[in-house]
Amino acid sequence: MDKHNLGLKSVSIIGDEVKASQFIENLKGKNPVFICTIANTRTAMVPGITVAGAIPEIVKCTPPADAELVYYGECKCIPGIPATPDGKPTPAIITLSALRLADIPFFIVEAGCEVKPHAPYISLSIPSPGDNIQSGRALDRDVVGKAINYAELIGRDFAELADYLVLGESIPAGTTTALGVLMSLGIDARGKVSSSMPNNPHEIKNKVVENGMKAAGIKIGSLKDDPIGAISTLGDPMMVSVVGMTLGAAKKVPVILAGGTQMAAIVALISRIRPSILRNVAVGTTNYIIEDSTSSISWLINQSANIPIFGADPGLSESKKEGLRAYGSGFVREGVGAGGATLAAMLKSKGKITTDIIRAEIERNYEKIVESRLKNR
Amino acid sequence: MDKHNLGLKSVSIIGDEVKASQFIENLKGKNPVFICTIANTRTAMVPGITVAGAIPEIVKCTPPADAELVYYGECKCIPGIPATPDGKPTPAIITLSALRLADIPFFIVEAGCEVKPHAPYISLSIPSPGDNIQSGRALDRDVVGKAINYAELIGRDFAELADYLVLGESIPAGTTTALGVLMSLGIDARGKVSSSMPNNPHEIKNKVVENGMKAAGIKIGSLKDDPIGAISTLGDPMMVSVVGMTLGAAKKVPVILAGGTQMAAIVALISRIRPSILRNVAVGTTNYIIEDSTSSISWLINQSANIPIFGADPGLSESKKEGLRAYGSGFVREGVGAGGATLAAMLKSKGKITTDIIRAEIERNYEKIVESRLKNR
Repeated sequence: MDKHNLGLKSVSIIGDEVKASQFIENLKGKNPVFICTIANTRTAMVPGITVAGAIPEIVKCTPPADAELVYYGECKCIPGIPATPDGKPTPAIITLSALRLADIPFFIVEAGCEVKPHAPYISLSIPSPGDNIQSGRALDRDVVGKAINYAELIGRDFAELADYLVLGESIPAGTTTALGVLMSLGIDARGKVSSSMPNNPHEIKNKVVENGMKAAGIKIGSLKDDPIGAISTLGDPMMVSVVGMTLGAAKKVPVILAGGTQMAAIVALISRIRPSILRNVAVGTTNYIIEDSTSSISWLINQSANIPIFGADPGLSESKKEGLRAYGSGFVREGVGAGGATLAAMLKSKGKITTDIIRAEIERNYEKIVESRLKNR
Repeated sequence: MDKHNLGLKSVSIIGDEVKASQFIENLKGKNPVFICTIANTRTAMVPGITVAGAIPEIVKCTPPADAELVYYGECKCIPGIPATPDGKPTPAIITLSALRLADIPFFIVEAGCEVKPHAPYISLSIPSPGDNIQSGRALDRDVVGKAINYAELIGRDFAELADYLVLGESIPAGTTTALGVLMSLGIDARGKVSSSMPNNPHEIKNKVVENGMKAAGIKIGSLKDDPIGAISTLGDPMMVSVVGMTLGAAKKVPVILAGGTQMAAIVALISRIRPSILRNVAVGTTNYIIEDSTSSISWLINQSANIPIFGADPGLSESKKEGLRAYGSGFVREGVGAGGATLAAMLKSKGKITTDIIRAEIERNYEKIVESRLKNR
């Protein structure tokens, strides 16, 4: 992994440099749409599996709260904003800042939330969150099939309107379901998925997936020819949405999968549904994921496809705010498409929006949203 | 009213010719998005008020069925397609044909339906259909206020992506609620709103509105300074969506209100909320509405604003199919944004998609969707 300039400062790339340069050059100055899929999996209720939200009961509100924060600059369904128990703010604050700076339109896809967002959203008619994958039955297979078709229509329609799509997600415990899907597809991802905590709880995740595989009566690779089965058994409803939209859009325009190791599951699924469209797909994440020694996004993606992985730097390790600097020490790292949004802002502005500008905007929003609230207590 | 060429055959205009020419010239070759709002009002249950659907119990499925027809070329929530009791097909068949010919992306906004569409849709979180306006309480005022804000966000976001918006609707009995809103705003629209039947049941509509006004304790013009109150009292949830999206989008890009006399209520509402944005708004309808002697769209619109009205001709009075020819004799006339979609297809193709081409495509779809079904009975 090297830092490459590509005319954009602070974007690392992994993968074939020529291919990656071409991909990114084509998008400079173009108009993207950012679509964030929000969903829940009851896997998040397993103790110790996620800190995406300060209080367990509030974890279920994290996805709609993230979406509201990006839309309005404040949350509606919870007081304050999603944060780790010790106050590190949700990556939605990065997404908000990047999208506003670059004037990138934002849409929400609701793909099975415990609580609906107080904002307009696109519905895929997924009736409920994903079940705890320890049951080995995450989602009804018919629901998955139908909703993937709906998401494909949405992707197709946005591909008529935007030059490219940036697809983010907010689903607590999403790296555990990613692990489950990767395992069932034959990719031994144990110890390689990332976490919102510096001490990545790999043992808990492995145990949950092991339980789910046992309950479903499958072994590693049992579902390698059945991607829909893999989602239904050990996946989550976010995958349904992002896989479907990518299938619908990437026929026509490039798609940036905006997320960390969860996107490895998306790439693995697509590689088993319609691999040819992956030539129009890249992963855009934060440099915090690229540099994470507790996970390995490049290894995970490379098991399925040779596509570019971009790591954009929102500059938080240099922040004057302690809560933001924590991103540089392994807290939170990614989510709500923060890395992809940062990349898209840099691309749309042809590099005029730099890491320094994005960090300043994030700090400004942090003062407005987080610090002002603490003062008013 | 004259036929003007404007480089597009078969588009009539009403209003200031210079202004109208400018409006339309700016849109030639540009990329629109077509957004159809679907909703119900229980006013449609009044006997004799609408024929938008063959059987009264099926009228409530007409909006989702229309949306499905445009998406898929077939309906999912009902067998066959919406039609008048004697088999005249829904105008969604025009919309479908025009949008497909010109490759115009299509989105559904669900704004309070009895039955949700079997397709992806944008939700405004309107919890239920509008009530029968004879109660004088069509919608909860807080719901209206919140959903208008949501729709405004949607309009703003699509305005970032598309060169202009075309906003259609499907809501049975929508001309009656339009009458109600116009009356409450001080526009005496009695005898001037259109109908899906050649014998426009003006007396029923007038009586329903009269009952609603009595129940609400208001007179003509009582709500002239309270547009939100007018929607809540005698309106319907489609208005919430279309008014909101127009407010959000027309700041930045042109908006074509794709519908008949229902759009007069939209224009009246906007003229009382934010009149300045109407300079970026026009009405696009079918020539069947323009030529309708039982209603008067131009008089209705002119009470609120001097904006262009375009009447596009899908050519059905020349059709070889009897069920389609009926459009030329006062049946159905408009709906599901048929006229606006026809206009947009002509504009996007710079006139290459002519009335003859659209009629041929409608006939092809009619054979495929309607006649093949009759044969298979």
